[in-house]
Amino acid sequence: MPAPGSMMAAEIAEQPAVLARLLDDALASTRMVASAVARRSPRFVLLAARGTSDHAALFAKYLLEIRLGLPCGLMSPSTMTAYGARPRLADCLVVAVSQSGSSPDLVESVAVARACGATTLALTNAPASDLATAAELHLDVGAGPERAVAATKSYTAQCLALWLLVDALAGGDGSAARGVPDAAQAMVERRGEVADLAARYRFASRVVLTGRGYSYPTAREAAIKLMETSYLAAHAFSGADLMHGPMAMIDPQYPVVAVVPAGIGQRAMEPVLFRLQASGADVLLMGTEDAGTGCTYFRLPPGLDEQVHPPVDIIALQWLSLEIALARGLDPDAPRGLAKVTQTW
Amino acid sequence: MPAPGSMMAAEIAEQPAVLARLLDDALASTRMVASAVARRSPRFVLLAARGTSDHAALFAKYLLEIRLGLPCGLMSPSTMTAYGARPRLADCLVVAVSQSGSSPDLVESVAVARACGATTLALTNAPASDLATAAELHLDVGAGPERAVAATKSYTAQCLALWLLVDALAGGDGSAARGVPDAAQAMVERRGEVADLAARYRFASRVVLTGRGYSYPTAREAAIKLMETSYLAAHAFSGADLMHGPMAMIDPQYPVVAVVPAGIGQRAMEPVLFRLQASGADVLLMGTEDAGTGCTYFRLPPGLDEQVHPPVDIIALQWLSLEIALARGLDPDAPRGLAKVTQTW
Repeated sequence: MPAPGSMMAAEIAEQPAVLARLLDDALASTRMVASAVARRSPRFVLLAARGTSDHAALFAKYLLEIRLGLPCGLMSPSTMTAYGARPRLADCLVVAVSQSGSSPDLVESVAVARACGATTLALTNAPASDLATAAELHLDVGAGPERAVAATKSYTAQCLALWLLVDALAGGDGSAARGVPDAAQAMVERRGEVADLAARYRFASRVVLTGRGYSYPTAREAAIKLMETSYLAAHAFSGADLMHGPMAMIDPQYPVVAVVPAGIGQRAMEPVLFRLQASGADVLLMGTEDAGTGCTYFRLPPGLDEQVHPPVDIIALQWLSLEIALARGLDPDAPRGLAKVTQTW
Repeated sequence: MPAPGSMMAAEIAEQPAVLARLLDDALASTRMVASAVARRSPRFVLLAARGTSDHAALFAKYLLEIRLGLPCGLMSPSTMTAYGARPRLADCLVVAVSQSGSSPDLVESVAVARACGATTLALTNAPASDLATAAELHLDVGAGPERAVAATKSYTAQCLALWLLVDALAGGDGSAARGVPDAAQAMVERRGEVADLAARYRFASRVVLTGRGYSYPTAREAAIKLMETSYLAAHAFSGADLMHGPMAMIDPQYPVVAVVPAGIGQRAMEPVLFRLQASGADVLLMGTEDAGTGCTYFRLPPGLDEQVHPPVDIIALQWLSLEIALARGLDPDAPRGLAKVTQTW
C-alpha cells in the first residue's frame, strides 16, 4: 500500500522535466500547427474543456486576446450536445483541451464544430484518443501517463503548450519561457515550506482564491485542487468580480489566497488587496514583491514574465492542496467519488 | 429605521410588474435594436458584465448559441482595460449588461470595442449612464430605481429583456414569455414557504448550487445572492463541471440546491442528481417534476418553456437569500463592505 498522496507527489515532482521536454521537443510540431491555424486566419476562438483543463483553456483565452487580439469564448458544450445547437463556425478556431481526450461531450462538441465549419485543434495527453482523432489538428502535451486523480503535470504541460502555440502564432521564438523549468524545479523543492503554510488551514472549511489577468486561471485551478483533495469549499474570483458581491462574505475568519506575480495583473490587484485588508481578511499573498502589506507572504520566483508564471505558481498550490489533505488524514490519491476520467454528456 | 431587508423585499415583490411592463412596452424598441443588429450580421458575440449582470449575460450566451447558432464569449475586461488589448472586432457584436451603467471597466471596454469595429449594445437600467452613451445601441430594462444593494428586479428584467432581444432576432413574437409575469407573481407569493425552507440552512456555512443549460445562470445568480446577503460560501457549478472535481467535497453535511425545470436541461441533470444522491448529499430539488427522488422538493411553476424559467425561478432563491440572512440576524439591505455601484478598473 503506497503512502497517501505519493502518486500525486511524484507527478508534481515530475513537472520540471515535463516542462523542459516540451520546450525541447514541441517547438517544431507547435510551429506546424500554428502555420496550419494561421493559414485559416481565424476571426475568433472557442475553447472547450472541463475541470482542470478548463483552467488551461482560460489561460489560453487571456493569451489569445492579449497577444493576438483574437476574441475568445469558452464553449458551453451542452448547447451542442444536449440542446442540439449547430452554430455557424466558419472563421472560427475551436481548441479542445483534455488530459484523457475521452470525455464524450468534448468529443461530440469537436465533431459538431468541425461539421459546422470550424478549424478544430485538440490538445491532449493522449494522441490516440477519440478527441485527438475527432479534431483536424492535434498537439500532444507529452506529460506521460498521469495516474493521480488530481491532475498536476498534465495541467502545467497544457499551460506551457498553449503558451508555445500562442507565442508561435505571435511570431515569438519561445524564449520567454526558457526560465520555466528551472523556476518549476525551485518550486518543487519548496514542499516543506508549503507544508508549514498548510498547517494554518488545517481546520479551515472554506477559502477564497483570487488573482487577475494571467493569474486568475491559477486561482481557479488551485480552487479545484483544494476541493478535490482536501474537500475545502474553495472559491476563486477574479479580483474585479470579488469586489462585485462576494467581498461581503469575507471576514477575519475567512482565509484568502492572492496570486500576484509582478506585472500588469499585480497593478490591477492593488485596490483588491487594499479592500481585503480593510475587511480584516487573513490574506496569504503569493507574489514576487512583499510590498510591506503585512500579509503572510510566499515568494514567487523573480525574473519571469507574468504570462509564463501560471505553470510555475500553481506548483506551490498543488503542494498546498496535497499537504492540507495529508494534515487532515485524507488520501489525495483517492478523492471521494472521483474517477480519473470523468464522463459527461 | 426600516425593518432589515425591507428594501430588498419590496424590490423582489415589484418584479411581476416590472416584467409585465417590459412585455408591454419594450417590444417595439427591442425590435428596432434587433433590426439594427441583424443588418450588421454579426458572426460572434462578446458579452461584458460584472456580478449579477454577468449571470444575465451568461443566460444570453445560452440563448444566442442555442436559438441563433451564434458563437459567444464572455469578455474578460482586464484584457482591454489593464493589458491594453485592441482586438479585431469587425463582425462582432458586443453586449454590455449593467444595472447602473457606470462601472468604469465596462464603459472603457465598450468604448475600446466600438473603436475596434464592433457593433456595441448596452443593456442598462440607466439610459443616461456612461455605458448607455458609450455604446452605439441601447436598451433600457426599465426596472425603475433599484436601491437595495442586492440586485433583484434589475436582474430579472435583464433576463427578460435579453430573451426578448434574442427572440426578436430569431423571428419570434415574444409570446413564449407571456406567462412569465403571472408565474413571477405566484413565486412572489410563496415567501412564507421559502422562509420555512430557509430554516434548514440557518447554521450552514456553505452550499452548492447546480443546474444545467438555461438553469446554470440561475444557480450562479443564487450563489452571489447568498454570498452577499447571508455570507454563505455558496458555490455554483454546471451539472457537468460538478462531476469534474468538486463532487469530491460533497458529503451528507454539504447542502446542495439543484435547479431543474422540465426540459432538456433537466434530462442532462439526471446523471448528476443520481451521483449526488449516491454521495448522500442533502439535495433541495427545485423542479417541475418531483420524480420521486426522495429529495426535499420545491415545486417550480409548470407550463413555462425552460428558456423563460430563469427570471421566474430566481425569485424563490432571492427569497431564500433574504430569509437566511434575516434568520441569522443580518440585514440584507446593508451587506458588509458593499456599495450599490461597484467601481472596478
